Amino acid sequence: MKQNILYEGKAKILYKTNQQDVLIQYFKDDVTAFNNPEFTKVLEGKGRLCNEVSSIIMNKLQGVVPTHFISKINEREQLVKPAKIIPLEVVVRNIASGSFAKNYGLPNGTVLKSPTFELFFKKDELNDPLISPSSAIALSIATEEEISKIQSYAFKINEVLKELFNLAGITLVDFKTEFGYLQNGELALADEISPDTCRLWEKATGKILDKDIFRKNLGSIIEGYTQVLTGLQKVK
Amino acid sequence: MKQNILYEGKAKILYKTNQQDVLIQYFKDDVTAFNNPEFTKVLEGKGRLCNEVSSIIMNKLQGVVPTHFISKINEREQLVKPAKIIPLEVVVRNIASGSFAKNYGLPNGTVLKSPTFELFFKKDELNDPLISPSSAIALSIATEEEISKIQSYAFKINEVLKELFNLAGITLVDFKTEFGYLQNGELALADEISPDTCRLWEKATGKILDKDIFRKNLGSIIEGYTQVLTGLQKVK
Repeated sequence: MKQNILYEGKAKILYKTNQQDVLIQYFKDDVTAFNNPEFTKVLEGKGRLCNEVSSIIMNKLQGVVPTHFISKINEREQLVKPAKIIPLEVVVRNIASGSFAKNYGLPNGTVLKSPTFELFFKKDELNDPLISPSSAIALSIATEEEISKIQSYAFKINEVLKELFNLAGITLVDFKTEFGYLQNGELALADEISPDTCRLWEKATGKILDKDIFRKNLGSIIEGYTQVLTGLQKVK
Repeated sequence: MKQNILYEGKAKILYKTNQQDVLIQYFKDDVTAFNNPEFTKVLEGKGRLCNEVSSIIMNKLQGVVPTHFISKINEREQLVKPAKIIPLEVVVRNIASGSFAKNYGLPNGTVLKSPTFELFFKKDELNDPLISPSSAIALSIATEEEISKIQSYAFKINEVLKELFNLAGITLVDFKTEFGYLQNGELALADEISPDTCRLWEKATGKILDKDIFRKNLGSIIEGYTQVLTGLQKVK
């Protein structure tokens, strides 16, 4: 039973339910970029596609790492467990692109020798700066043990996703996740994993299938996201 | 016997000698800031002060971590072992100041819960960006083992310096180091440790005694650096 809004973010809304250990996560059609309200657009069908993709992925991750995901209940919504989010964006990269390629002077598309693990301090007013693990510890954002566990989970997720997308004919360039504590004290993957939070390139052509379509004004985000969903559905 | 210049940096010159395993490190009077040639000034006596301070510190570090330092030979120069520098600036912080305080939204002077360890990729044209340890590994800048050793050395140096400066009535806010490989294959502290590469505040008053005097146009850098040297000489 959907009740009051607990939290509304840029792309999702969390509703309370009549069970205190279950929330409804609703996927909005809003697309935003660059932490900039001017870069916001409503694209019909986007929320549904992210819900479908994220549900498939969260199901694949069952047994790999703990997640907040319970089940998809309709096109727009899924049931999730409440999680106290650690304010770190956790980014894993297999290929250099975006700000990473620019910051470190690498050609876009450079294959990395090993996956990277980066933490960004989630603070819109600071523009989510990159932060070293020891600095996150020094600022009491997370403990050393938490960061070590998050890194291990993030790399495990990367292995599963790389394989999954590869079977769907898609290259996983990088992805962003968030982690939090469930009510039982378990550290778990939260948020979503979707074309909104990954860079995904068509394997055969390098065609961009993710939110960069929007960031770079490359055409229809819906077409790209649909191709991702269709690809994953064929693997299932 | 001083021979040709091997390398000239912003604040130092390395000369070859007639021994292939010994270089002369000459300290210039040039002061630079913000990686910006427009922020360069020649301040007479600066080089001597940095040589004196760095020599005292390198001597204190003997037996703590391997260093490239052999001995001070005159006011301006010291003998050092050649080192193949790893292109990472290694920064340790005890107190938030400068870009760190600004980037993470902390008041200048915030005491950190634990020391931070940060790596910056040394590339002037990229403006020396912060880089996560795993990214430095992925870009083949250093191996996992090297970074782990560098972190352990950097924290050991921090402990020695904190204690040393404390006895001199000075608070060690943060410092920058560089590491490299000696000819015998040993990973060692290189470069210098001086008021050019540390943030140092007078314990009693918080008065700035380091290069921030120049960056912030606060008065005479020579006065501040002299106070650091005098303080350390009293401890000796």
